[in-house]
Amino acid sequence: MTDKIAFIGLGNMGGPMAVNLHKAGFAVTATDLSPAARAKVADEGVAVVATAAEALTGATVVISMLPASRHVEGLYLGDGLGATGSNPGLLATLPAGIRIIDCSTIAPASARKVAAAAEARGLSMIDAPVSGGTAGAAAGTLTFMVGGADACVEAARPFLQAMGRNIFHAGASGAGQVAKVCNNMLLAIHMIGSAEALNLGVNNGLDATVLSEIMKQSSGDNWSLQKYNPMPGVMDAVPASRGYSGGFGSDLMLKDLGLAEEAALASGSAIPLGGLARNLYAAHSAGGSGGLDFSSIIQLLRKREA
Amino acid sequence: MTDKIAFIGLGNMGGPMAVNLHKAGFAVTATDLSPAARAKVADEGVAVVATAAEALTGATVVISMLPASRHVEGLYLGDGLGATGSNPGLLATLPAGIRIIDCSTIAPASARKVAAAAEARGLSMIDAPVSGGTAGAAAGTLTFMVGGADACVEAARPFLQAMGRNIFHAGASGAGQVAKVCNNMLLAIHMIGSAEALNLGVNNGLDATVLSEIMKQSSGDNWSLQKYNPMPGVMDAVPASRGYSGGFGSDLMLKDLGLAEEAALASGSAIPLGGLARNLYAAHSAGGSGGLDFSSIIQLLRKREA
Amino acid sequence: MTDKIAFIGLGNMGGPMAVNLHKAGFAVTATDLSPAARAKVADEGVAVVATAAEALTGATVVISMLPASRHVEGLYLGDGLGATGSNPGLLATLPAGIRIIDCSTIAPASARKVAAAAEARGLSMIDAPVSGGTAGAAAGTLTFMVGGADACVEAARPFLQAMGRNIFHAGASGAGQVAKVCNNMLLAIHMIGSAEALNLGVNNGLDATVLSEIMKQSSGDNWSLQKYNPMPGVMDAVPASRGYSGGFGSDLMLKDLGLAEEAALASGSAIPLGGLARNLYAAHSAGGSGGLDFSSIIQLLRKREA
Amino acid sequence: MTDKIAFIGLGNMGGPMAVNLHKAGFAVTATDLSPAARAKVADEGVAVVATAAEALTGATVVISMLPASRHVEGLYLGDGLGATGSNPGLLATLPAGIRIIDCSTIAPASARKVAAAAEARGLSMIDAPVSGGTAGAAAGTLTFMVGGADACVEAARPFLQAMGRNIFHAGASGAGQVAKVCNNMLLAIHMIGSAEALNLGVNNGLDATVLSEIMKQSSGDNWSLQKYNPMPGVMDAVPASRGYSGGFGSDLMLKDLGLAEEAALASGSAIPLGGLARNLYAAHSAGGSGGLDFSSIIQLLRKREA
Repeated sequence: MTDKIAFIGLGNMGGPMAVNLHKAGFAVTATDLSPAARAKVADEGVAVVATAAEALTGATVVISMLPASRHVEGLYLGDGLGATGSNPGLLATLPAGIRIIDCSTIAPASARKVAAAAEARGLSMIDAPVSGGTAGAAAGTLTFMVGGADACVEAARPFLQAMGRNIFHAGASGAGQVAKVCNNMLLAIHMIGSAEALNLGVNNGLDATVLSEIMKQSSGDNWSLQKYNPMPGVMDAVPASRGYSGGFGSDLMLKDLGLAEEAALASGSAIPLGGLARNLYAAHSAGGSGGLDFSSIIQLLRKREA
Repeated sequence: MTDKIAFIGLGNMGGPMAVNLHKAGFAVTATDLSPAARAKVADEGVAVVATAAEALTGATVVISMLPASRHVEGLYLGDGLGATGSNPGLLATLPAGIRIIDCSTIAPASARKVAAAAEARGLSMIDAPVSGGTAGAAAGTLTFMVGGADACVEAARPFLQAMGRNIFHAGASGAGQVAKVCNNMLLAIHMIGSAEALNLGVNNGLDATVLSEIMKQSSGDNWSLQKYNPMPGVMDAVPASRGYSGGFGSDLMLKDLGLAEEAALASGSAIPLGGLARNLYAAHSAGGSGGLDFSSIIQLLRKREA
Repeated sequence: MTDKIAFIGLGNMGGPMAVNLHKAGFAVTATDLSPAARAKVADEGVAVVATAAEALTGATVVISMLPASRHVEGLYLGDGLGATGSNPGLLATLPAGIRIIDCSTIAPASARKVAAAAEARGLSMIDAPVSGGTAGAAAGTLTFMVGGADACVEAARPFLQAMGRNIFHAGASGAGQVAKVCNNMLLAIHMIGSAEALNLGVNNGLDATVLSEIMKQSSGDNWSLQKYNPMPGVMDAVPASRGYSGGFGSDLMLKDLGLAEEAALASGSAIPLGGLARNLYAAHSAGGSGGLDFSSIIQLLRKREA
Repeated sequence: MTDKIAFIGLGNMGGPMAVNLHKAGFAVTATDLSPAARAKVADEGVAVVATAAEALTGATVVISMLPASRHVEGLYLGDGLGATGSNPGLLATLPAGIRIIDCSTIAPASARKVAAAAEARGLSMIDAPVSGGTAGAAAGTLTFMVGGADACVEAARPFLQAMGRNIFHAGASGAGQVAKVCNNMLLAIHMIGSAEALNLGVNNGLDATVLSEIMKQSSGDNWSLQKYNPMPGVMDAVPASRGYSGGFGSDLMLKDLGLAEEAALASGSAIPLGGLARNLYAAHSAGGSGGLDFSSIIQLLRKREA
C-alpha cells in the first residue's frame, strides 16, 4: 500500500515542502485557505483541493505547516467550545492509523497539548519544526527537530527526508519545539553579540573584515560570523550585503524569541540575554524594521548615516 | 648579532611564555617583583634578575606581561609626576632601536597612549595581547592579536611564534587590544547564551547532550558549545566536568568585559548584551564565584541542588 | 433585600478580606479547598462551608481570590472539556443577576476571556486585583485596580470599600489586571534600580542613609526609597531591617513580572528593563531566595560577607 | 574683606549661575574660551575677562563649571607633561587660602584626583555638581550634591545658596559626584521603566493618563511620573508635550550613565539595569535622538506612527 499525504498550509515554507514531497514520488493532496497559495503549488504539479476535509480523503499521513499555536490548536482541537462548537477539530474525525506530522513552529506547551489529545484518541503525532528558511525549504535541505515516540519518528523519517537533510530526534512530544526555541534563542543572542562586537571594533578603528576573521579563528567564533555576517560589505551573498532583504525576517525571530519567553515562563527559567534579545527585536520591529532580515538588528546599534 | 630579550612579568601567563622563549633558543633575562615567580622560571633554566633595569642591560627587545593598564602605564610612563617624579618610566631610559612588545591585556586607550609616548621618543612598540589561557601559554599555542605598524609587527613575529601558534595583525597601535576585547566580549555573550539555552532546554525536559549536539549542527553553533560546554556531564575534560576548577577565571572575564565597557564608553558604542554580560559576571563574582572558571556562570541561572 | 456574598479562596490575602467583609456587616459564606484555611476565618466569626456550590446558595455576589489564571479559569469555565467534561464551571450554573468580582491577580488575557464568557451568559463580572500585601488585607487598606463596565464597578464599590481604601477604575474588562501588572513591573524596576544605586554609592564610599535622603529629595525619588529601602539599616520596620522576612515575597514579584511578560508578548511591546527585572528575580529565586521579601534582590548585587 | 569670585565656564549652566552670584551681590569676574558666552553674561552686568589668569587676579574663590573630566583635570592639573609641559595647571599658581568649588559633573575618580592634588598644595577644594537643569540654573533653584571636608563645605555654602536651593553634603571629596551619578542613574532607570509601563498599558487598551494616576498613587510612584511624564498628552509643560524639545538632553543623560558605568567598573559593582539604561540611551543617540529630551527614550519602544 502506498502512503497518501494530506498537506495543510502552503505558505512560503509549506508550499515548497509540499512540492518536494510530490517530486519525491509521494501522492500529495495539498490545501490552504488562500487560492493564490494553492495555485502556486498546483503549477508545480501538486494536486490541490479547497478544504482540509477533501485533502484528508483516503490520507494515511497528515502534514501541517501553520503560522502559530492558535492555528495548530484550531486545526486539530477545534474552537474549544466542545460538543456545542461549530468546529470540532480534525482529531475528532481522523481515521485510526493515520500519522500526524506538525511542522509548524509553535509553543512547546501547545505542541504537547495537541499531541496528548491525539494520543487520547489513539492517534500518532510528532512535532517537527524546521530551520533553514525559505531557501532550505525550496532546496529540500531543511533541518528537522523532532519530538515524539521513537516509532512515530522512525515512521515519519521517509517523509521528512524528502523535505530536508538533517533530522534530529530531540525527545518526547514537544521536544522538537523546545530544541528549535533554544537554538533560535541562541542564534539571536550571538547574532546581536556579533553585531555589538563588530560595531565596537569598527568604532575603535578596526576593519570589520579583519576583525571578523580574527574572531572566527578564536573563541568568539559562532554561526552568525561564519555564515551570516551582519556588517555590510564583509560577506557576499548575505542579507547585510543587499540591504537586509530576503533571509529570515526580524519579525519571525521576534516570534521565536516570544516562544522562548513562554517556555521560560512555563518552567521558571532565567534567560537574561534571551529576554533582552526579544526586547531589542521588539524595539527594532516597533521602529519599522520588522520586515528586514534579522541581521539588520545591527542598525539598532550603529550610528545612522545622514 | 643575536637578540637579547628582557622579559618583565612572570605570572601565570608570563612565566611559561618566558620559558618558551628560552627553550626556542633566545637569550632571555627575566624579572618580576615576586621572588617566588622568579624562582619558578629560574628552575626552568631562564636567567632571572631582581629589577627591570638589570634585565634591560644590553637588551634589544623588551617583552612585558602585566596585569592591568595601570601597571603598564607605570612601567613605561612612570608615576606621571614628570621630571620631579621618583619613577620616570622605562621610556625615558630605553636605548634607541630597542623593540617593545607589550603582551598585557589592557584598555585600548591605554595601549595607544603608551605607544604614542614611545613613538614620540623614536621607539618601536606593539600591543600583542594573547588568548589561550595558561594551558596555551605552557604549550606555546597562544593566539596573539597584534596592533602596531607593519614593520614592527613583522620584526616581532619570531618572538611571538616562539610563544604561540596564531598571530593576527589587527591594525595600528591599540588594535590588538580592541580585537581581544571584542572577541572576549563575544565569547562571554555566547557562553552565557549557551548556558541559558541549555538550561531552558533541560528545564523543559530535554537532555543536555542531545540538545548540545542539535545546536552544534544548527544555527546556534558557537565556540562555547564546541569546546567548552558549561553544563556538567556533557563534555569530558572541560571545567564544567570538574567543578569549574582550572580554565579561565570568572574574575578574568569580568576584567575583560570591563575593558569592553571602557572601549564602548570611549567610542559611544551601544553594547546591550555585552554590558549585561559584564553585570551578570559582576553579580556572579559578588556571590563568591569569581575564582571559578567563567563557564560557571550557568550556576547563576540554575536551580541549586539542596 | 440584603446582599449575600459567596467568598471563594481563603489564603493569606483572601482570608482577611473575607473577615473584613463580615466585620462590615455583610452576610458572607466563605469556602476554600483547605480545611485549615476555612477554620482560620471561622475563628473570626465568618460562616464557612466545604464547597463552592454550598457557598453559592442564595448568593447575590461572588468574590474570588485565587492564586493564578488557571485556577480562575477552572473555577468559572470548568475543565474546558465542554458538555462532556466533569467540571462545567460556575458560569454554567450561576443565577441571573448575580455579581462576580474576581480579586485574583491573573493574566489580562485570562481575565478578558472569563469576563467575555460571563457576559455571553448575561452575567456581570469585574476584575479587581489588589495591592497592599497581607498587611493591607488585614487592615482593610488594600488598593483595588478595577476593570469592567461602569455600572458593574459602581455596584461593586460597597464591597470593595469594606476591604480597601483606594479604588481605581482602570477601564474595561481586564484593565484592572493590566494596571496592576504595569504598576508592579514599575515597582520591581525601581526597587532593583534603587538597590543598584545604593550599592554603587556604598561601594564608592557613601553612607546609604545619606544617599537615600539625597535621592528622595531629588529626581531619583521613588516609592521604594520612600517606603521600602532595600539596604539593611536605613529604615526601621521594613523587611531589609529584619532579614528580608515578611513583606511581599520575591516569588510573588516573579509571578507578577511573568504576567507583565505575557502582556508584552500578547501586545508585541518592548519592555527591556521589565524583562531584565523578571530574569533577575528568576535567578534570585533559582538561588534559593524566592521566599524572601522582594527587596532582598539587593543581595544578588552585593558582595556577600564571609 | 569681601570675597572675590573667579568664575570659569559660562555655558548653558555656568552662565546663569555666574549671573545669579552677581545678582546676589558678590564680586564676580567670569571667563570662558568662547567670546559669545562671555558676551552673554556681560549683558547681565557680570565683569568678564578673556583668560583664567586675569579672572584669578585678586580672587579668594574659584568656581568652575566645565563639560567633562578632561576639562577639569586640564584646568587644574595642566597637560600632565610636568615641568616640561606648556600648561602647568591652576593648582601650580593659585595663592594660599583660595577656595576651590568645582560644579562640573565629572567622574568621582577624577574629582578625587584633583582634590588630592589641591590638598597636597594646601588648597581647599570641594566637588559640587548640580541637578535642576538650565531652568534651575536660571531660577537659582539648583540642587547641589557636595563632597569635601566639613569646614570647606560650610565655607562654600553662601556661594552655593546664591545659585541653588538645596545643598546636600554627601561626604568626603568625590562624594558629591558619586551622589549625583547614583541619583541620575536611578532617574534614567525609572524614566525608562515608566515609559515601558505606560507603553505596555496603552498597548493593552489603557488610557495613559488614567494609568499614570493609578501608578502615582500606588507603589509604582516615582519622580518621572510625578514631574516628567514621558507619554505625550498626559502632562502639560513637559518636554513630551512639545516634541521632546528643551529639558535635559538624551546625550547628557548618556554622559551621566557613562559616569555611573565608570564608577561601577572602578568599584566592581553590578548595575544590570543601570548598564542597560546606558546602552538604550546609546542606541537612542545612535539613532539620531541625542538632542531630544531624555524622556524621548519612550520613542525607542513605541510603534512609530506612519
